[in-house]
Amino acid sequence: MKITLMQHTSLEVCAHAIRTCWQSFDKSDDGGEKDKDLINRVGNKFKHASTLEHLTYTFYISDVSRALLQELARHRIASPSVKSTRYTLKELKDEISFTNGMSALELNEKYTNKDEVYSDKHMIRASKYLVWTNELFVDFSSVVALENLRLSLTFNISNDKAKFCLPESYKTELTWTINARSLQNFISLRSSNAALWEIRQLASSLFNTLPKDHQYLFQDCIAQS
Amino acid sequence: MKITLMQHTSLEVCAHAIRTCWQSFDKSDDGGEKDKDLINRVGNKFKHASTLEHLTYTFYISDVSRALLQELARHRIASPSVKSTRYTLKELKDEISFTNGMSALELNEKYTNKDEVYSDKHMIRASKYLVWTNELFVDFSSVVALENLRLSLTFNISNDKAKFCLPESYKTELTWTINARSLQNFISLRSSNAALWEIRQLASSLFNTLPKDHQYLFQDCIAQS
Amino acid sequence: MKITLMQHTSLEVCAHAIRTCWQSFDKSDDGGEKDKDLINRVGNKFKHASTLEHLTYTFYISDVSRALLQELARHRIASPSVKSTRYTLKELKDEISFTNGMSALELNEKYTNKDEVYSDKHMIRASKYLVWTNELFVDFSSVVALENLRLSLTFNISNDKAKFCLPESYKTELTWTINARSLQNFISLRSSNAALWEIRQLASSLFNTLPKDHQYLFQDCIAQS
Amino acid sequence: MKITLMQHTSLEVCAHAIRTCWQSFDKSDDGGEKDKDLINRVGNKFKHASTLEHLTYTFYISDVSRALLQELARHRIASPSVKSTRYTLKELKDEISFTNGMSALELNEKYTNKDEVYSDKHMIRASKYLVWTNELFVDFSSVVALENLRLSLTFNISNDKAKFCLPESYKTELTWTINARSLQNFISLRSSNAALWEIRQLASSLFNTLPKDHQYLFQDCIAQS
Repeated sequence: MKITLMQHTSLEVCAHAIRTCWQSFDKSDDGGEKDKDLINRVGNKFKHASTLEHLTYTFYISDVSRALLQELARHRIASPSVKSTRYTLKELKDEISFTNGMSALELNEKYTNKDEVYSDKHMIRASKYLVWTNELFVDFSSVVALENLRLSLTFNISNDKAKFCLPESYKTELTWTINARSLQNFISLRSSNAALWEIRQLASSLFNTLPKDHQYLFQDCIAQS
Repeated sequence: MKITLMQHTSLEVCAHAIRTCWQSFDKSDDGGEKDKDLINRVGNKFKHASTLEHLTYTFYISDVSRALLQELARHRIASPSVKSTRYTLKELKDEISFTNGMSALELNEKYTNKDEVYSDKHMIRASKYLVWTNELFVDFSSVVALENLRLSLTFNISNDKAKFCLPESYKTELTWTINARSLQNFISLRSSNAALWEIRQLASSLFNTLPKDHQYLFQDCIAQS
Repeated sequence: MKITLMQHTSLEVCAHAIRTCWQSFDKSDDGGEKDKDLINRVGNKFKHASTLEHLTYTFYISDVSRALLQELARHRIASPSVKSTRYTLKELKDEISFTNGMSALELNEKYTNKDEVYSDKHMIRASKYLVWTNELFVDFSSVVALENLRLSLTFNISNDKAKFCLPESYKTELTWTINARSLQNFISLRSSNAALWEIRQLASSLFNTLPKDHQYLFQDCIAQS
Repeated sequence: MKITLMQHTSLEVCAHAIRTCWQSFDKSDDGGEKDKDLINRVGNKFKHASTLEHLTYTFYISDVSRALLQELARHRIASPSVKSTRYTLKELKDEISFTNGMSALELNEKYTNKDEVYSDKHMIRASKYLVWTNELFVDFSSVVALENLRLSLTFNISNDKAKFCLPESYKTELTWTINARSLQNFISLRSSNAALWEIRQLASSLFNTLPKDHQYLFQDCIAQS
């Protein structure tokens, strides 16, 4: 999982928005401690959460699975632009076999220790396309699915048909714009220990990728357990 | 693909909303031709599209793939409640082998004609879980992925790990509430011949499942080609 | 303030949506106590609030002020169709003077007790157009503004210019569709004793206008003070 | 009407988002002509309008009326933070009379030419608080309403009551964040000659306040008549 913050709004803009309501522009310290306190007090404590919508973040997120994408897309107050399998599956056409023709059960029998698996050159090539779960049989199953997907394309089956046998571990990427209010909701729900492991990692990584001076607004959203 | 319309708002409610703006309640014919003309004129021709938001539809959609779900979820002005793989994958635990241990390539060699494939008892059992593309090699690949997913569960791997090797052809279902304005957008974009074949079917089926007296509002959204 | 509930979704639809996620349709009691408990548990306690979006309500709200409308419109996950001053101000053209030419200060001096004021025939006619605050000088000021607005129209000034001298106490009405999740947010914020008195009344009236078997979902949103 | 653009997203971010879908990063010219063409082609011509949501603008808009605010607030995919009358009406307390006790009809009789009116010192003071329509009787009515509002406050009536006699010409201001897709919709609907004159001015001014290199995305939204 890789995350880059491509743009964000300055805290000053949010403070200005809040000061519009009370006409308290003269109390601003240009995004300093007084403004930061104001944003936290009004947006979080007083629950005038709409003021946090002035802060938008655009993240470039890659090396996440399409399983994760299924969950991320449910957060509807956000704008995702996602790598299209329909247009990009051809990337697999230049690859050679990922399995040497072995099935998931055969791969499972072949390896006796875990370290060996993920340093195998087939697996390293496959890791360009797949998110590993570190559950060996699942990852072998994904590799077999990847190989069958690759074969489909070499058989000149169209992307729109071939994509149906794509495993959800298949890596995708997206450019994602979300405002602070909606991101608080995301981090609150997805940092919970009831959340899927990969999206928990994402919630945590998003928090860490935020500008340092913005993180205080999200601190209380991080689930404790 | 199966679609049931679980609830919808009566056209009278929408006509009442529009008549609120002009205070023309006395011109209503209680959802008759005059009201229907009004809704079309104001909501479609005059582009006061917000008036169409009073009409909501709840569809129960099943036997669609998770590939389709990836696209449907991008329509963010709608409310989906989706079958959770995290909670329901156990449904596979009681199944027996879908492949007799054969690989996708082996299955591909075994069958000489298409009809035979989809009437095979293994395939019929698998069709409970998979959307067929009618591209044989893709469907065999999905069956192999399904079998590996089933094995993962018999190995007591947790759903949250096993789900990563699930093929996108895996069937899902959802209860989906959407208003008429957003549904117009959906049908316009997804009935295009540039759209994915399965979601084109969905766009068409949604239109056909609408109450007959509501369809006129969506007629112009259906792509011609 | 008058509120009519024009349509609402049955709890069964929401319960069906939730049961889609877990595939627990066989546990339903068709909108009975088990389903009601489920909705509360999942939508409120577990904070899967999106499931509450399947429940939509359409209210016809009249005899509220445009001051209230300014606040109501900030609740953006909702669909309002509002009486248009641009198209309906002509309603004032048939009226005769609301003030006999008196100013707000003169009206304020004329009356010695409050009861007398609101039973005065001018004031009764004006109350068709104005929300009273029961603060006499404010209400007299509104009546004077109403009279000036009436005069503007008799002078054949266009609605689009005349509407600028309209007082915010001017009565409006709207047909408003909102889902249960957004209505919970509305009632939570607007039943607070920090809210404007008229919108507090609205929050309370909306709650009371809900179907009796839906009210339990909103009980905890009503502010205690 | 004054508008300041407080922040905007660079076109490069939007181009990056689009290139995520096709994985065509290597064709970027870092926000140059190729990227600009791409955004227009995908976002406008191909109607993948969601890609335009990555572009957000924050405007600080002042000296507009609350009549305009009523309309602006209906554009619900946007984030407004508005000057609160509840908290700021006290600004009127330090003012002296705006009318010398004259009624709207008396003011209307006093002045024989228009130029004289708006250069009168009372009117100049009032113009700090009111948007003029240049329809004399309407503007006199607004001034009388303003004076009554001022008197209400000197009578120690609470803001929450006094605000009900406020005329809709009363000036407000807001900090408004909106994405390019929603702004296109705003400009399309509000630059029409069927739109209210003040919001037409706003639509035009917003367009002119956009960064020069962003304007091409909105050119076709400006109504011709």
